[in-house]
Amino acid sequence: MNPANRQPSIARHNGASAARVAARADAEPDPMKKAAEPKRGIVYLVGAGPGDPGLLTVRAAELLRAAEVVAYDELVSPEILALASPDAELLPVGRRHGSGVAVYRLHAGVLARARAGKRVVRLKSGDPVLFGRGGEEAEELTEEGIAFEIVPGVSAAFGAAASAHIPLTHRDYASDVVFVTGHDAGGSLTSKSDWEHLAAGQGTMVLYMAARKLQANVDRLIAGGRSADTPAAYIASATRSDQRVIVGTLADIAGKTAGVDRNAPALLIVGEVVRLRERLEAIDAALLAS
Amino acid sequence: MNPANRQPSIARHNGASAARVAARADAEPDPMKKAAEPKRGIVYLVGAGPGDPGLLTVRAAELLRAAEVVAYDELVSPEILALASPDAELLPVGRRHGSGVAVYRLHAGVLARARAGKRVVRLKSGDPVLFGRGGEEAEELTEEGIAFEIVPGVSAAFGAAASAHIPLTHRDYASDVVFVTGHDAGGSLTSKSDWEHLAAGQGTMVLYMAARKLQANVDRLIAGGRSADTPAAYIASATRSDQRVIVGTLADIAGKTAGVDRNAPALLIVGEVVRLRERLEAIDAALLAS
Repeated sequence: MNPANRQPSIARHNGASAARVAARADAEPDPMKKAAEPKRGIVYLVGAGPGDPGLLTVRAAELLRAAEVVAYDELVSPEILALASPDAELLPVGRRHGSGVAVYRLHAGVLARARAGKRVVRLKSGDPVLFGRGGEEAEELTEEGIAFEIVPGVSAAFGAAASAHIPLTHRDYASDVVFVTGHDAGGSLTSKSDWEHLAAGQGTMVLYMAARKLQANVDRLIAGGRSADTPAAYIASATRSDQRVIVGTLADIAGKTAGVDRNAPALLIVGEVVRLRERLEAIDAALLAS
Repeated sequence: MNPANRQPSIARHNGASAARVAARADAEPDPMKKAAEPKRGIVYLVGAGPGDPGLLTVRAAELLRAAEVVAYDELVSPEILALASPDAELLPVGRRHGSGVAVYRLHAGVLARARAGKRVVRLKSGDPVLFGRGGEEAEELTEEGIAFEIVPGVSAAFGAAASAHIPLTHRDYASDVVFVTGHDAGGSLTSKSDWEHLAAGQGTMVLYMAARKLQANVDRLIAGGRSADTPAAYIASATRSDQRVIVGTLADIAGKTAGVDRNAPALLIVGEVVRLRERLEAIDAALLAS
């Protein structure tokens, strides 16, 4: 293990002072000093991966076991929460889609517990800084003077790609990949992205939060220049036991997924790489026939 | 744990036959059957994450401990290899940049060992299917009739983003991110990507394999429409003890990194999100002054 990576964020790049801040932030309480210097809390912004508990990082699993408070949202699976210490407080902090939050704020309970000196793990589905608002939360912690560490995770696209057998890049099909989101925190179509340029690219596109607004997003990809024949795979509940994969084209994928539960987290992989799925799964039939 | 995710790839989506194939692929040898049906090997294409062993997934660490053969390339750190069983064969299979391999092939030793019935872990830096050629290797294994499983990992961009304090997306700066590579397997500038459209986007761009050809890649971003003033961060050896972060703009980043060892793996994060780094690190000074 590399000790430099084990320090909280505020203590990363200055030897002596780093040690001092780290000691304040998460050391065991020193009885001689306790009265003079209260224990400092810390918030770990931790990626929980795509759903399968085996896809947590070793570091995330360790932090989860050691946390005094685990703050989680609805996308984090119960199997992952079960890894927390029985003594830990489990704090639900998520908001379901469509709550209409104009300005995202870190949950007040997380701040309160960190100020009270607790080790708080804020678990986020996937990776904390890709559509996870980890950057916004880190800013808020910075403003509050609370130590934090960002622990990366396996983002949903990688879990989906692996378990659906769709490589994101491939020498014959795509040498770049773009990640976009199907809607913003308030549930509206994202307008910040430059869809015209994104749609006109040749590489793989992964649309996160694809369950809602699927037809509208597909429409603007086609309007932006992607061929309606482009292969597309809709993957719901990636890496979980209820994973579903539905393959089609931009033209028909919204129709093909019409019966799917839109409450299950989903993403859409768009591009020629989707064709590989069939080939990589062909081994089934071949081996079984032998 | 979800048992469905614990099956090798060839055995994923058919109950009864899946069990049969999985049993062939990696079950303990059954002495009664051994002569009639030889033990089948399996290859796990495993993402090793960005470098820090704590950023392996739990699943990857388990597979590594149980592997009979660990095939690895130069980017996988010694601390990670140290997690393999002392009985495992460590098989170096990588090729350093510039070897000029026209058509990538899976290492013959990996195939030979899988055919001989071994459990082989093919460790890949980052994630296996983002610039990791995991898709190509899976195709080859399919053609050879060898069972495989793709185990996703934390790609380097996520490790770099977390440890350099640069969120990949953020409500004020970027709602999409594109991953491209600075050169292909042979060391040439990639021509497959549509650089004009990629460069013209508004979101974050992560250039993998940024160490070589940096000036040429920056030049074509600027030629494609990205402002020369766009912030850019060069991150070498992300998440490792020798991590280096150098911040500049597209105009000056190649010059600023002129003295850096080009053998260290590196990526370049381009976009307004780079500005957050300074803000997220400001807490250092603030806390230390208090």
